[in-house]
Amino acid sequence: MKALVYQGPGKMALEDRPKPVLQAPGDAIVKLLKTTICGTDLHILKGDVATCAPGRILGHEGVGVIDSVGAGVTAFEPGDHVLISCISSCGKCENCRRGMYSHCATGGWILGNQIDGTQAEYVRTPHADTSLYPIPVGADEEAMVMLSDILPTGFECGVLSGKVEPGASVAIVGAGPIGLAALLTAQLYSPATIIMIDLDANRLAVASKFGATHVINSADGKAAETVRAITEGRGVDTAIEAVGVPATFLLCQELVAAGGVIANVGVHGHMVDLHLEKLWSMNIAITTRLVDTVTTPMLMKTVRAKTIDPAQLITHRFPLERIVDAYDTFGRAAETHALKVIIEA
Amino acid sequence: MKALVYQGPGKMALEDRPKPVLQAPGDAIVKLLKTTICGTDLHILKGDVATCAPGRILGHEGVGVIDSVGAGVTAFEPGDHVLISCISSCGKCENCRRGMYSHCATGGWILGNQIDGTQAEYVRTPHADTSLYPIPVGADEEAMVMLSDILPTGFECGVLSGKVEPGASVAIVGAGPIGLAALLTAQLYSPATIIMIDLDANRLAVASKFGATHVINSADGKAAETVRAITEGRGVDTAIEAVGVPATFLLCQELVAAGGVIANVGVHGHMVDLHLEKLWSMNIAITTRLVDTVTTPMLMKTVRAKTIDPAQLITHRFPLERIVDAYDTFGRAAETHALKVIIEA
Amino acid sequence: MKALVYQGPGKMALEDRPKPVLQAPGDAIVKLLKTTICGTDLHILKGDVATCAPGRILGHEGVGVIDSVGAGVTAFEPGDHVLISCISSCGKCENCRRGMYSHCATGGWILGNQIDGTQAEYVRTPHADTSLYPIPVGADEEAMVMLSDILPTGFECGVLSGKVEPGASVAIVGAGPIGLAALLTAQLYSPATIIMIDLDANRLAVASKFGATHVINSADGKAAETVRAITEGRGVDTAIEAVGVPATFLLCQELVAAGGVIANVGVHGHMVDLHLEKLWSMNIAITTRLVDTVTTPMLMKTVRAKTIDPAQLITHRFPLERIVDAYDTFGRAAETHALKVIIEA
Amino acid sequence: MKALVYQGPGKMALEDRPKPVLQAPGDAIVKLLKTTICGTDLHILKGDVATCAPGRILGHEGVGVIDSVGAGVTAFEPGDHVLISCISSCGKCENCRRGMYSHCATGGWILGNQIDGTQAEYVRTPHADTSLYPIPVGADEEAMVMLSDILPTGFECGVLSGKVEPGASVAIVGAGPIGLAALLTAQLYSPATIIMIDLDANRLAVASKFGATHVINSADGKAAETVRAITEGRGVDTAIEAVGVPATFLLCQELVAAGGVIANVGVHGHMVDLHLEKLWSMNIAITTRLVDTVTTPMLMKTVRAKTIDPAQLITHRFPLERIVDAYDTFGRAAETHALKVIIEA
Repeated sequence: MKALVYQGPGKMALEDRPKPVLQAPGDAIVKLLKTTICGTDLHILKGDVATCAPGRILGHEGVGVIDSVGAGVTAFEPGDHVLISCISSCGKCENCRRGMYSHCATGGWILGNQIDGTQAEYVRTPHADTSLYPIPVGADEEAMVMLSDILPTGFECGVLSGKVEPGASVAIVGAGPIGLAALLTAQLYSPATIIMIDLDANRLAVASKFGATHVINSADGKAAETVRAITEGRGVDTAIEAVGVPATFLLCQELVAAGGVIANVGVHGHMVDLHLEKLWSMNIAITTRLVDTVTTPMLMKTVRAKTIDPAQLITHRFPLERIVDAYDTFGRAAETHALKVIIEA
Repeated sequence: MKALVYQGPGKMALEDRPKPVLQAPGDAIVKLLKTTICGTDLHILKGDVATCAPGRILGHEGVGVIDSVGAGVTAFEPGDHVLISCISSCGKCENCRRGMYSHCATGGWILGNQIDGTQAEYVRTPHADTSLYPIPVGADEEAMVMLSDILPTGFECGVLSGKVEPGASVAIVGAGPIGLAALLTAQLYSPATIIMIDLDANRLAVASKFGATHVINSADGKAAETVRAITEGRGVDTAIEAVGVPATFLLCQELVAAGGVIANVGVHGHMVDLHLEKLWSMNIAITTRLVDTVTTPMLMKTVRAKTIDPAQLITHRFPLERIVDAYDTFGRAAETHALKVIIEA
Repeated sequence: MKALVYQGPGKMALEDRPKPVLQAPGDAIVKLLKTTICGTDLHILKGDVATCAPGRILGHEGVGVIDSVGAGVTAFEPGDHVLISCISSCGKCENCRRGMYSHCATGGWILGNQIDGTQAEYVRTPHADTSLYPIPVGADEEAMVMLSDILPTGFECGVLSGKVEPGASVAIVGAGPIGLAALLTAQLYSPATIIMIDLDANRLAVASKFGATHVINSADGKAAETVRAITEGRGVDTAIEAVGVPATFLLCQELVAAGGVIANVGVHGHMVDLHLEKLWSMNIAITTRLVDTVTTPMLMKTVRAKTIDPAQLITHRFPLERIVDAYDTFGRAAETHALKVIIEA
Repeated sequence: MKALVYQGPGKMALEDRPKPVLQAPGDAIVKLLKTTICGTDLHILKGDVATCAPGRILGHEGVGVIDSVGAGVTAFEPGDHVLISCISSCGKCENCRRGMYSHCATGGWILGNQIDGTQAEYVRTPHADTSLYPIPVGADEEAMVMLSDILPTGFECGVLSGKVEPGASVAIVGAGPIGLAALLTAQLYSPATIIMIDLDANRLAVASKFGATHVINSADGKAAETVRAITEGRGVDTAIEAVGVPATFLLCQELVAAGGVIANVGVHGHMVDLHLEKLWSMNIAITTRLVDTVTTPMLMKTVRAKTIDPAQLITHRFPLERIVDAYDTFGRAAETHALKVIIEA
């Protein structure tokens, strides 16, 4: 089968690989219909993700059709259309039992990282019963691909950890796909004010279209000041960090109101400064989270009810044969205005 | 009347001052029975608290008897015995209405800071109806003094923000009075493991007596390692920072388990390093809080029921005339083994 | 001044009454701009509310302008436009401090019940600082009248107690003003399914317009069956009882799914049957609540942000002189299609 | 093997039965070490449990040793000592994923009810990975038997649903084993007042020993009055119903304070009266729950830490051969003073 293989920092290629086989009773083999590329895939390509060795098939998102299942699988059978979660969850270990699937003892984020992933014609998914979700007949399968990772990430790590509430104020720092996913899902809780902050005018225009009540181009260094003006000097109830660098985390510390939350979504590669000399008395919380995908069923219901439309995030489509071009388009997002690209397998 | 007055960095004296008078309809004048000294008072004396100007009567804790009340006070009358909360709360503003009294628009921590305090024969307390608490007849009034600040601080900022639960594991970094208050109140939620970490052997011995299941002298630099050993490699569900320096906050980052909480209680004077490059995916929360004293009624009930005995924290007693000696004893705690000192007015 | 006075069961009249005067330091006198009639006012007129004696001026809703304030009032001054909450809250007592204003030791629902109310040119409001809310300049004051009682009642007693969540299913039994208020505010949490159940075709048509995803006319006795069909046999996550009779409470017991909530909003005059022999193992909660109006600030923010538009509830307008006609129109709602009527003072 | 078999209403016998065999990949066969008898077993014997057909081996509690496991079981192997939960949970279905194991699509309370149970030498346990718990080396295995059902039932259905808090007041109606389990576990949250109500003087004496602060013999019909006197007229924050008849549920309605919870634990066979005409405005919650055993890991930690000692509940011991005598002793508890009886297999 065709599969996109990571060949070491800066290198990848579409290779011919053997179709995967069942290895454990809980496994399923899924024939991919559609997959996509995540910002994390770009991190792997840069060589920033130590757990991902050369030779690995990339990708941790997608929808597909069950090809075969192991003896222990009871929830699925060949022919079923399924959503593949980016997080593999055994459903048995202490962390899974408390809803923290991201830290599953034998799972977590392993697809396209520690085991072969979804940017291929077929993928082996461990713990299939608790890591795949049935796709309702008639659902928009492209929209469903957004539920593998990006939508639950924005929702769980940003909106839920950030305790967004009706009438509240939210600032989202970073209007990339993940920040926009937070923007879409924040509206499930009806905040009165959603301020989007970025350096890219195109992304801010998209944010306005997606429901931001205010957009701020932070190029002038006055974002914190502008947020204070919008919030009558208080700052925001929730500041969502959706970039992953020290400067944006610092900005969040300037934006958050007393009693508020800084919900970190960004993947950080470096230590950051935390101004506890100012924050110690401000009754705030700072949260971190690797997505658990525990809200996948909830999000599927809101998508089916058309409360949110994640298909808005899709800007480009490529066949699997042209996945390297898809990476190029996704990687040059500032020029191509790419948000999420769909790869059809 | 006699009052302890801050005279600028490093200087204080017991002076004669006029008895305070009612200034607003919500005020009460309270005749002090007992007061105490807080670590924050030492910070003021060092000149570290910019809001406290020379000439200020110090102190924000104590019990006393109502001497007179303003026209708007309905809950108290002269002769009532009351607990004085360290936080003044109007009960009306947006923050008070959401239970965040520490950020009251016209209150917060003002006693012995922005207005004259309790280390005197009399004190004027604003917002009396919502900042004083009636002391039940027969209550141990010395024990009650511990409810002005230290017990709610350990409980709210450490135990509640830290989400301590039955069966859980807790590490408290710093076995001073505030860490010990967290230790006493953590037991209200029946954690299975409470690890106390300090450099002072005497304080660790006290911690054992107060209910710590493990004590660690961190002088050898192996505290994190030892905590891992105690918790089967997981780290603790709750790490309470009760010192207020970068090194102890750093230690908390090493102690906390995935899914856990770092509850900051310490007063920090400097920026700290936050290792988001490690923590971003660990599903933790870091909380800060200035005590709200919103749990004072709850804590009074547990003290009356003898579930916790805060009088254990009291090591020394002085008359008001000798309050300067009391400061000396409290300030040299390593030698004197002082925890909390009672000043009898 | 003109005031609508309850004269005993079945009797009321617009009388001339002296303008009220300040009685306590916390009082304000408010000149009414607009008020409205509540279903509870009809209960009083029937003689069903024992606490309301003949001679009482009715009404517990409205917006107005501050005429004068007592010595203890600090948040308002003459000329301020204010929303009058149906619940008077001292902000000091144990229940107020825990957010249960409905059970305030010296307040609760007293306006137009135990003390004179708002269907008059002026009203005396006790505990003004914590029972009135400033109306932002430019706000739609008619819409604000809906925040005195009906909107927080539907929201707190129905939506919040009912734990409505994104993607969830809700059934609201009773499409009168209070059920419609629950319908409007439920959408703040983005449930996927909102089923409105009533016997009145007009009200069901209104419900569809207000956002119900399904409407059921329960005249055929098959409402429970239909709800099962809509919810794939599960029943609803939240059943909101907005009528107040045994039959509708019984229907809620048939509608609720395992793990769900029955949130009672209706005012009941009689004991009801509770089928614990079926429900004991179903992991449900049944909640009751007199509105606390603790969410008034949150709701004001959502109205200002145009997330919800409570003015949709207003169907008729009358001058104060014609308030008896307004009662007639409101009382014959089935014929007049009245929801909420505005009385202009 | 020997097994206690239900033979229809009023009849049971110790029979010879074939040793059970694995039927599904997730099954385990467990050799029993110790089991016990539950009040529900007596209900079955009376013919009150329609789902339990004659011929069924009874029992849903116990500890044992793994004899064999199916191909899909990954957490256990032969020789492991395990606690058998009364609730079988697949860990995969929607209800299991939300922590409501009691309503597992293919499990729930099936042991000793819909499939053969634990009052035998061996038992087949479905969904073994998520329905058995490893017993730590050195643990008191008799104490562990209390964790199969009675302790989590009292804790989850009574204490957690009842939101017991430090300083709060709790009344437990019914001092049988389940009420006593609620009493033991309520203390994990340090309420100030725990009032035990029963008709049996012996059980009330036991309750005092187990930590009740007050005991009331309700024979005089004045229990509600006495509770009011103890709670300064307020009633209790939490009323736990641990009997299962209309009269005790009615009593709970009289005991609960405004803002409180009635947590139903009892198994009810009949409809009850609910006085909504009084309760509609009291801001209470009534909860029902079949135990989920979701807190089993938490409870195991508290037992290991000796915070609670469930072995106190054990009053009698019998070998499996004498299990019919054990039923007789347990069934005549008023005379024998039996609480929980251990059956050694």
